[in-house]
Amino acid sequence: MLIRNLGDIRKSDRNVRSNGWVSARLLLKDDDMGFSFHVTTMFAGEELKMHYQNHLEAVLVLKGTGTIEDLATGEIHRLQPGVMYALNDHDRHIVRPETDILTACVFNPPVTGKEVHDENGAYPAEADLVAAD
Amino acid sequence: MLIRNLGDIRKSDRNVRSNGWVSARLLLKDDDMGFSFHVTTMFAGEELKMHYQNHLEAVLVLKGTGTIEDLATGEIHRLQPGVMYALNDHDRHIVRPETDILTACVFNPPVTGKEVHDENGAYPAEADLVAAD
Repeated sequence: MLIRNLGDIRKSDRNVRSNGWVSARLLLKDDDMGFSFHVTTMFAGEELKMHYQNHLEAVLVLKGTGTIEDLATGEIHRLQPGVMYALNDHDRHIVRPETDILTACVFNPPVTGKEVHDENGAYPAEADLVAAD
Repeated sequence: MLIRNLGDIRKSDRNVRSNGWVSARLLLKDDDMGFSFHVTTMFAGEELKMHYQNHLEAVLVLKGTGTIEDLATGEIHRLQPGVMYALNDHDRHIVRPETDILTACVFNPPVTGKEVHDENGAYPAEADLVAAD
């Protein structure tokens, strides 16, 4: 049994900050759960264009409001507590937080924690650290 | 892209109530994400003895307090918002909520939504409905 505390994770190297977001990784690939589990904050006023070519992701909004745009369809969905979006088709998307948005996120396959988003807003398929955009 | 709202799920057949808990299944096996994702409430005063023989599970406490006992070691861990436990070794455990405990839970492999806990507090490996204890 693993016991982790978000406060401790946020003070550790499992807390990763990038352009427009910060993510506390409660579970990573090396925990061997078959998924990774993160508490991620996306910052108010940012425009986060993302495309996970190698991962499926589910995101549950815990606090805050904003929108997500599905770039395949142009549809814009409202984000607020209790809304979940799942990128089940490697969907290109833009999140526009109006306030800071606190989320619980699951990635399959699990991320290693060493990735950063590359120039396409993607994570690489495996662990190697790539240049941030 | 899938968009789901917890309020809608709670009014649907994806909301499952059993002895001591109720679980809103945001993602299930048929969503093809490779995991299932639930918002589960464990009720104050219950004693939930569980053993997932066929699944790994991670649980993030969002609201409420209680304890979890690891039956392999006898250790008792405090549950409060921001604490995550992961059953990475099919750990036998007992959760004792002091208040209602609201959680976000991830299962690998994903549950189908048709399971109920069997007499061992486990989910069966696959979909068939089994008798509740």
